[in-house]
Amino acid sequence: MTTTAVGSRELPHPEREDIRLEEVLHALADPMRLRVVRELAGEGRELTCSEVELPVTKSTSTHHFRVLRESGVIQQVYRGTAKLNGLRRADLDALFPGLLDRVLAAAALQCERLDG
Amino acid sequence: MTTTAVGSRELPHPEREDIRLEEVLHALADPMRLRVVRELAGEGRELTCSEVELPVTKSTSTHHFRVLRESGVIQQVYRGTAKLNGLRRADLDALFPGLLDRVLAAAALQCERLDG
Repeated sequence: MTTTAVGSRELPHPEREDIRLEEVLHALADPMRLRVVRELAGEGRELTCSEVELPVTKSTSTHHFRVLRESGVIQQVYRGTAKLNGLRRADLDALFPGLLDRVLAAAALQCERLDG
Repeated sequence: MTTTAVGSRELPHPEREDIRLEEVLHALADPMRLRVVRELAGEGRELTCSEVELPVTKSTSTHHFRVLRESGVIQQVYRGTAKLNGLRRADLDALFPGLLDRVLAAAALQCERLDG
């Protein structure tokens, strides 16, 4: 876990080469975290934590975003007082080609199946 | 979790429609369990638990195989006194097309990267 911190408000992120498959899978293995990832992928832009509505408390939500960040699935950057979340798609696609897309497709199929 | 038990030694497995993406990802998110899945995929046949050598105690190994079975990733069938383990590839491929192959490829790439 390294970061090129230039200020106290920079959050630690793993470098690309330190991202591990097992931790990415663990991060994606939770319904709330999978929902965050689907929303970020669907919107195709950075979102604040409050733009991603989760039916959990604020502290639980913060926990989920932290697990996603520490595993290398998302980056979190402060812009003023807002924390912006973005998918690390380039890093994930470089390390694990096609994996994120397969997980997103599987999640979409499962949603259709369970809601249909 | 249902099973068509005809004897006391049949182990419970989820039906295909009860397999959930989050549980499959959780099952795959552990280095030892990922290793089991890679060996089963690589051998392309059923293996006994002792044929899959893991650097853990027997009870830990049994736990990992149970997590894989209960999530729907593998089936475990008694043949005499041996418990045979097989990947539920048809079920996983039907529910989550391409996912298992992407995970296996990602695991192989990561191994190369870390060992290389």
